Amino acid sequence: MLGKQLESIGVRKPLVHAITNYVTVNDCANIILAAGASPIMADAIEEAADITAICSALVLNMGTLNARTVASMQAAGIRANAVGNPVIFDPVGAGASPYRNETARSLMETVRFSVIRGNISEIRFLASGDGQTQGVDAADGDRITEENLDRVIPFVKAFAVKTGAVVVVTGAIDILSDGSRTFIIRNGHPMMSRITGTGCMLTALIGAYVGASPKEPLEAAAAAVCAMGIAGEEAHRRTLAADGGTGMFRSLLIDSVSRQTAAALEDGARLESR
Amino acid sequence: MLGKQLESIGVRKPLVHAITNYVTVNDCANIILAAGASPIMADAIEEAADITAICSALVLNMGTLNARTVASMQAAGIRANAVGNPVIFDPVGAGASPYRNETARSLMETVRFSVIRGNISEIRFLASGDGQTQGVDAADGDRITEENLDRVIPFVKAFAVKTGAVVVVTGAIDILSDGSRTFIIRNGHPMMSRITGTGCMLTALIGAYVGASPKEPLEAAAAAVCAMGIAGEEAHRRTLAADGGTGMFRSLLIDSVSRQTAAALEDGARLESR
Amino acid sequence: MLGKQLESIGVRKPLVHAITNYVTVNDCANIILAAGASPIMADAIEEAADITAICSALVLNMGTLNARTVASMQAAGIRANAVGNPVIFDPVGAGASPYRNETARSLMETVRFSVIRGNISEIRFLASGDGQTQGVDAADGDRITEENLDRVIPFVKAFAVKTGAVVVVTGAIDILSDGSRTFIIRNGHPMMSRITGTGCMLTALIGAYVGASPKEPLEAAAAAVCAMGIAGEEAHRRTLAADGGTGMFRSLLIDSVSRQTAAALEDGARLESR
Repeated sequence: MLGKQLESIGVRKPLVHAITNYVTVNDCANIILAAGASPIMADAIEEAADITAICSALVLNMGTLNARTVASMQAAGIRANAVGNPVIFDPVGAGASPYRNETARSLMETVRFSVIRGNISEIRFLASGDGQTQGVDAADGDRITEENLDRVIPFVKAFAVKTGAVVVVTGAIDILSDGSRTFIIRNGHPMMSRITGTGCMLTALIGAYVGASPKEPLEAAAAAVCAMGIAGEEAHRRTLAADGGTGMFRSLLIDSVSRQTAAALEDGARLESR
Repeated sequence: MLGKQLESIGVRKPLVHAITNYVTVNDCANIILAAGASPIMADAIEEAADITAICSALVLNMGTLNARTVASMQAAGIRANAVGNPVIFDPVGAGASPYRNETARSLMETVRFSVIRGNISEIRFLASGDGQTQGVDAADGDRITEENLDRVIPFVKAFAVKTGAVVVVTGAIDILSDGSRTFIIRNGHPMMSRITGTGCMLTALIGAYVGASPKEPLEAAAAAVCAMGIAGEEAHRRTLAADGGTGMFRSLLIDSVSRQTAAALEDGARLESR
Repeated sequence: MLGKQLESIGVRKPLVHAITNYVTVNDCANIILAAGASPIMADAIEEAADITAICSALVLNMGTLNARTVASMQAAGIRANAVGNPVIFDPVGAGASPYRNETARSLMETVRFSVIRGNISEIRFLASGDGQTQGVDAADGDRITEENLDRVIPFVKAFAVKTGAVVVVTGAIDILSDGSRTFIIRNGHPMMSRITGTGCMLTALIGAYVGASPKEPLEAAAAAVCAMGIAGEEAHRRTLAADGGTGMFRSLLIDSVSRQTAAALEDGARLESR
């Protein structure tokens, strides 16, 4: 299942439109390319909807939102819905400021998302207007562990039912659900949280995968999550072997995505279906 | 000829003002520094023209254009023309949206460019309002090959005559013309298209080269194109040797530019004069 | 003293709010993470002050200032002062354009800074409205050397007294003063000036250190300056050993910060107290 998703990117070479933050935008573009898709970043209101219309998927990331780009996100999101393109939402820092909260709510009301990806604090906020956020990271008391996993899954499922989106909650353990089926993924490495942008990059990568397989958003998102996690594991091994740190790890993470094969993705995935 | 161009950067250390997209701006700044010049990025309308006036070259790249930065590009371009600084234009994604098309046209009308660099789809659009663009990449049916080269050259020459600029069309084969002389360059490696920003970086590098040799824009641009292509070849060899992927390639590309010598540039250049 | 400062970041894990330029913002986020703190970049006027209020330090960098972000810098600075958070100022390019000069002056009037870090040209401009600036680099005639050091120190001290801030003037030799005590630091390597953003990254790193030790801004800033310089020395050694250039150096610089220990910082520091 996962390998087929990866191969589908090579076949369809989806063009992914991303309106995303300026902190990690370069990494997002490079990871989309590494996976075999093509990125285009365009956030002017004068063209956001036009660009979306020539693409296969739209990624909206509110990392460094402002009035200008939020308006473009709305316009692009509405157009993507109209032309039937999948829209992937990354509510970075939802819960951290009233402006972020209001923007997230407003986007949820005007745009129909295929996938929503965030950490547990962000998703909890979207679901209930609640949950602590520690800047752009999940609050400590909010982390997903093997102990609380069984309690978190029904929450994720319910939010997927409510929104009609595939919900992807990432952390040490990742939970994905489309409301009926749920995947638990245990790939990845803690070093991924020591560089900026692994969350944003994953969302961008989901854009590439779902852009190639728009009718299978749950499988495509799961493949992207496994691909990213496996790349993190490999980048960590290579960093250790070279006695390196986070600077090297960052390059090797994208490196690993660029060399991933369908077989390696199938082999490395630690996915449990529930 | 080419080696002299490279050495000239070391002697004059031109300050290059770039109003460019936020996706690849860091790579653009680093490649300008790698070549021995200095970058300054300043896009506020309140200072764009002032900054240009203290620099040796201006690079305008419309990758993530918006109303604010387009106005600054206009103001900086006009001032650069007034003080006699070369202006290098990268019409990223021309053809991809009406807003990009209109902006490109408007910049072509108000600013006199020393060099215009783009892929064949972008240049075709500028020349004729035509040509397909696939996001920010050249459309497949538009690629320059050994087979269609003889037909494309007269088109590039004519556009150079019409604009008074050195026109640089890059792809698997690069064509440069100032209207009378034409260079064909066959350096580079396909891996360059698997990372974001090689086009933008080349335009920035042309800014460094032309900033150092403003009276020889064709030779300077040719040296920059060869320098970038040779760096791509070397980065590919080093990436292969280290069993790496695109993350490593990106670092090594700038690495190679930073270690380039005049002799290596002369030796490695695959330039044909027509 | 210095090692304790580094360890304090690990204990307090300060959240650092940075309103900074889009050229080097990714490197700034990654160096804050490498040091063990957490970055958040938020520059919308709708949330800048709210975000500051949940953080431990605020970094204001005017590298790519514009009307929108300058207003946010003001608002965030005022709020940081109100809640007692340290504010670190990087007057990038002060002296290079009237707009930058006016913005720097205006920020100096409305916000109380804990630390001001710049090259000698920028600091000279802030102090006297004078001094040459070469784009974003110090002018040649302005450099700090062993010969003019004794003349520069009283100037730095006086500016610290005048502003009430710890003043950090960086170059081949770094000078830090809080008006009464002065530190001279001789770490670092010339290769640091061949990549973009080492100044910005240092300012961000000072944000992490001072965010963890807000009551000891001079010691914290000194630790950050030594940490950065030592990382530059180590990155240079590793780059040389791998026969690399500036692309590799950039990765290794952040790499080194991410692996720094309190003991290595103490050992490597070349700090003279006056």
